[in-house]
Amino acid sequence: MTGTAQLVAVLGQGVVPTTSAVLTADDLGLTRGDGVFDATRVMTDDEGHATAEHVDLHLARFARSARIVDLPEPDPRAWKALIAEALAAWHHPGEAALKMMLTRGPEHQPSTPSAPSALLTITSTEPGNRRPLKVVLLDRGYSSHAFAAAPWLLGGAKLLSYGVNTSAKREAARRGADDAIFVSSDGYVLEAPTAAVIWLQDGILRTSQTGATGILESVTVTLIESWAGSQGVGFEHALIQASELPMTEGIWLASSVRGVCPVVAIDGRRVAANPEWTARISSAAGF
Amino acid sequence: MTGTAQLVAVLGQGVVPTTSAVLTADDLGLTRGDGVFDATRVMTDDEGHATAEHVDLHLARFARSARIVDLPEPDPRAWKALIAEALAAWHHPGEAALKMMLTRGPEHQPSTPSAPSALLTITSTEPGNRRPLKVVLLDRGYSSHAFAAAPWLLGGAKLLSYGVNTSAKREAARRGADDAIFVSSDGYVLEAPTAAVIWLQDGILRTSQTGATGILESVTVTLIESWAGSQGVGFEHALIQASELPMTEGIWLASSVRGVCPVVAIDGRRVAANPEWTARISSAAGF
Repeated sequence: MTGTAQLVAVLGQGVVPTTSAVLTADDLGLTRGDGVFDATRVMTDDEGHATAEHVDLHLARFARSARIVDLPEPDPRAWKALIAEALAAWHHPGEAALKMMLTRGPEHQPSTPSAPSALLTITSTEPGNRRPLKVVLLDRGYSSHAFAAAPWLLGGAKLLSYGVNTSAKREAARRGADDAIFVSSDGYVLEAPTAAVIWLQDGILRTSQTGATGILESVTVTLIESWAGSQGVGFEHALIQASELPMTEGIWLASSVRGVCPVVAIDGRRVAANPEWTARISSAAGF
Repeated sequence: MTGTAQLVAVLGQGVVPTTSAVLTADDLGLTRGDGVFDATRVMTDDEGHATAEHVDLHLARFARSARIVDLPEPDPRAWKALIAEALAAWHHPGEAALKMMLTRGPEHQPSTPSAPSALLTITSTEPGNRRPLKVVLLDRGYSSHAFAAAPWLLGGAKLLSYGVNTSAKREAARRGADDAIFVSSDGYVLEAPTAAVIWLQDGILRTSQTGATGILESVTVTLIESWAGSQGVGFEHALIQASELPMTEGIWLASSVRGVCPVVAIDGRRVAANPEWTARISSAAGF
């Protein structure tokens, strides 16, 4: 995209030129999507000082993802040092996304046995990406309990194998929408391709439960849940039939980079916006 | 692996040093598993002359995969030229695997708009990888018709998002087996993580049908089906309940690189080997 700034850093090397190639052709992160990632928002102040948000929470989830795919757990101290070095070199004004990636590394070359590849990018994000969203519902093909007894399906891991997630976003665009919400084969709301779904029902905030659904634990949801607890606002992990979603009192997609975006249409039909609660939970999530 | 030889070639650049990095940190093939691949066997004769098998069939499937994920179709002439250049530089004796990869390219850098990344590897394969296999059955989480009305699930494409496929192989190893066979949530045999499944039942060769099952069309199966047609041997695309598989007259995993491997145990129970048919269909597939 025009005007997008980017920085690249590699564990063990530090910041490298953005346009330099960093991965070999047989890195399993490329050849098999065999790796995990995590992402959070970077804010740069007027003096050009950049900070990454909730790094500990994201490193903890990164480590959980690594465990799920049997990768060696990322060393938080080494990653924090790399992030600090990257942030110190990042002065692009406004917001950006920090993305950490860990792959199983080169399958054959050059080392035996191969070591994981560990790298990060910081990429400037478009202003105004916190807009209301038109979404479409897309069948994810899995039942709401498909992951309960099948750990090899890697439920709950933020995998580099995100091909279906990007495909769902293309399908949404094809239908004139901004994003998608995945629905289980038995009709329950799961998550968006790169965000969690939150809805307000009977005055209680709810989000789809993790575990058997295979969906990713959301850092933004954790922040909102923690705020709700401190404010006496009800917060529940539950399942809802997609057909019931339009009748709720508010629906949002929540992600660490994009923040809290209200859903204003589902499959072409308007749904009630709730500006008061949008402001409340955006603020709770730090947006 | 010790003793593994490898060659790397990039479309537009030709053969590059094997250990050189070829992908940027924000290549969508890495960050999203957003790309496709195909693979076939390379044979090198005693004079060091290497040939790749069934290149047209694999390039045709590569193009179908690209279409499914909305990538520009690979130009067969450009790819054939790159393959020829790579084979001319490949002299490692014995067998090898040629892998072609096409990704959506760098998301932000350096070009606007980004161009796909297109590269190949040739990697020597272990001798004796055509051995009998102990397999485990693993639930794939999808029903046998999950892909019928959901093209965004990318059924039938050989995706770089293969994280669950590699995870299934790790699960098989954990259970003391050599490989896995995926089973649909409604109990039907689908495919192996990197091979098709063929079985002999009532004297007829059968393989799981593509389409609504989402499984990949197998080039090896196509070769065997063509041979069967010429020999008056029955060949059908069908579904079989996994519970019925052990009662058939022979079971094989078939792939372009590994060839035809007989299954000799399922979930720890021996199943009847069928050396006569193993020889017959191996030969039909050119192994």
